[in-house]
Amino acid sequence: MYCLEETGKRAMQAKYVLQTLAADKKNAALEAAAKAFLARKRELLAANEKDLKNGEENGMHPGLLDRLRLTEERIRAMAEGLIEITKLPDPIGEVLEQFDRPNGLHITKVRVPFGVIGIIYESRPNVTADAFGLCFKTGNAVILKGGKDAIHSNIAISDIIREALEGEGVPKDAVQLITDTDRQVTSDFMKLDRYVDVLIPRGGAGLIRAVVENSTIPVIETGTGNCHIYIDEEADLAKAIPIVINAKTQRIGVCNACESLVIHEKIADKVLPALGKALREKDVEMRGDETARTLIPGCLPAKEEDYGTEYLDYIVSIKTVASLEEAAAHINRYTTRHSDAIITENKEHARIFLQEIDSACVYVNASTRFTDGFEFGFGAEIGISTQKLHARGPMGLKELTTYKYTIVGDGQIRP
Amino acid sequence: MYCLEETGKRAMQAKYVLQTLAADKKNAALEAAAKAFLARKRELLAANEKDLKNGEENGMHPGLLDRLRLTEERIRAMAEGLIEITKLPDPIGEVLEQFDRPNGLHITKVRVPFGVIGIIYESRPNVTADAFGLCFKTGNAVILKGGKDAIHSNIAISDIIREALEGEGVPKDAVQLITDTDRQVTSDFMKLDRYVDVLIPRGGAGLIRAVVENSTIPVIETGTGNCHIYIDEEADLAKAIPIVINAKTQRIGVCNACESLVIHEKIADKVLPALGKALREKDVEMRGDETARTLIPGCLPAKEEDYGTEYLDYIVSIKTVASLEEAAAHINRYTTRHSDAIITENKEHARIFLQEIDSACVYVNASTRFTDGFEFGFGAEIGISTQKLHARGPMGLKELTTYKYTIVGDGQIRP
Repeated sequence: MYCLEETGKRAMQAKYVLQTLAADKKNAALEAAAKAFLARKRELLAANEKDLKNGEENGMHPGLLDRLRLTEERIRAMAEGLIEITKLPDPIGEVLEQFDRPNGLHITKVRVPFGVIGIIYESRPNVTADAFGLCFKTGNAVILKGGKDAIHSNIAISDIIREALEGEGVPKDAVQLITDTDRQVTSDFMKLDRYVDVLIPRGGAGLIRAVVENSTIPVIETGTGNCHIYIDEEADLAKAIPIVINAKTQRIGVCNACESLVIHEKIADKVLPALGKALREKDVEMRGDETARTLIPGCLPAKEEDYGTEYLDYIVSIKTVASLEEAAAHINRYTTRHSDAIITENKEHARIFLQEIDSACVYVNASTRFTDGFEFGFGAEIGISTQKLHARGPMGLKELTTYKYTIVGDGQIRP
Repeated sequence: MYCLEETGKRAMQAKYVLQTLAADKKNAALEAAAKAFLARKRELLAANEKDLKNGEENGMHPGLLDRLRLTEERIRAMAEGLIEITKLPDPIGEVLEQFDRPNGLHITKVRVPFGVIGIIYESRPNVTADAFGLCFKTGNAVILKGGKDAIHSNIAISDIIREALEGEGVPKDAVQLITDTDRQVTSDFMKLDRYVDVLIPRGGAGLIRAVVENSTIPVIETGTGNCHIYIDEEADLAKAIPIVINAKTQRIGVCNACESLVIHEKIADKVLPALGKALREKDVEMRGDETARTLIPGCLPAKEEDYGTEYLDYIVSIKTVASLEEAAAHINRYTTRHSDAIITENKEHARIFLQEIDSACVYVNASTRFTDGFEFGFGAEIGISTQKLHARGPMGLKELTTYKYTIVGDGQIRP
């Protein structure tokens, strides 16, 4: 049986070396891993073929099969992803603050790696390479538990990385893959707090909830996005309609897609007929309240639960409100605190919305689809945090670090 | 029966008002609460008397009875604590970063309250006032669950605060006390993640472990400190001995007290006889390995578990090592990652120790007793974090906040 205790101990050993590695050493190892992906692509494709075959035999959904699939191009993208990470500045060792105390103590707050990061994710082999790259660049050891449908692909990817690291004289236990697909092992992994400093689930709402409920390791929740766009009474319709169409339909299966529209009743008769037409042209099913149904032919009635649903599909809910306050209360009630937007030309309405909405990213006159590490200019992203502890919104390299205080004295004792 | 759902909803209502309060409004309310403590001290003392009487009847330990006791002086200190908080700068609204993206989006990272903070603590009535003050100043609503032995005192304190808030036109639900002392209510409180953003346990190791294992709310672990002092082969004994005596004996029951000594064997015969004498004069029981026992008359044998024990008592463990590396490995194995120190005149040894030790506060030539919000100059403290997510080490006002991103555009959509 798979021994998690051993995995934890090996990660712990590795982290003490990784935290001291210079940036050029880390970059050289990332480059070596990228080269190895390209050189050994046949192995990767063969391993992936096994997973695809099992998936097809088990009747896997075509969308999931597509996410599981590796191609030459996708392998090249994985390699390029690691090269991109080498170009980002190394955040480790950054002095965040320093100050002297009246007693002569010199206190420095310095950025350090977490130590050991655990990541639980679904059957997407590219996450294996990605998560390794981001954790490694930030001096962390990572323990990966990927979806069981991608097990052969994940083993091949992690083996290639481990050999590349060894070739560069870096501890291969910087990355470890949990190869036992038994659910009990995943459950035990969530309780490995004596070795793992932080656990990041990446996947759907069910996976994230299971981790939050069972983990004794501090968790960074990522992901689910029931994102709203509120069209204010003073909205410019030339901005509102393209933003809604973009946020709802540019890519439907992602966490920063719009799922719910909130419309001020004073502007409803101006905006809803045109918006309804534009959404119908994109084959979006609409579920609205009475006002919306009156103004949009073919709009279905919304149930209470529609307002709380992350559809990830060509469906949107529509709610009309009598005031900005009612809009904010509605959104704060149903949002998953990911990304919400107001469309308005009124600066005071924008200010109130930015202050009142309790979400990681709050927008004025822009699409919610911009909540993304690359779009924010972070250069990389491990996920979007929807909790408030540690990190909120897009998480780049800095969000994979913590800090410690070093205190240097010359014999100070406390009176 | 006590309805936690209602408590959660009321806190949620309050938070939307609290997050918008100006600093002078918050300070006025803190002052009103401080004045009310002084004006209504008889009520407080009478309520506390009930708790003390129950405690005595239940055979409560004298040390715990002392922590439970309110006196006129302690009530004055509680009031002064709130006044001190009014003098600290308000961190809310601080712009942490802002930048423009090539597409014209203006992104601002701004400091905001968590929203709703939960605090679970033992029978210390002063924590009720303290925790309210820190959470309120940072624009958070707080839900308090204090130890059941202090229930009458806590009800009196929170009622006085709530009335003072009401008098200032501020939502009284900024502070709510869970008055049901049933364990099931505490357990349900830990799962109130739909209303509570962060949960902070304050107390002993058992309480903290129970919260970590049962909570679905993100937790900031505070507290336990198995703190080490390593006396390097190049230590200055004129610094080493006073630092050890200070860290071990200046106050024994606190988390930043020293619990374990690690000594380089090359300096053992110089340091241990004198150190043993100094510790014995303070009535400290020593438990050491063979080398320590040879050099210190009366030193008892240390068992394996001694090295992992936070005694909070006049006891210290002693371990000799052959190298700095062995010292670091020993400390990293047994530390609770609170505070650890090296005593050395060798700068390179100090540098390695500061880098290798995986603790919130790592010291060179100073007492571990300085790990404290006031000693760090933060002006206030809600606890010492021993985890790595969000905050490490002493937590002041800033550590009770999070941030959000506001993104202002003029119609941007994602290509």
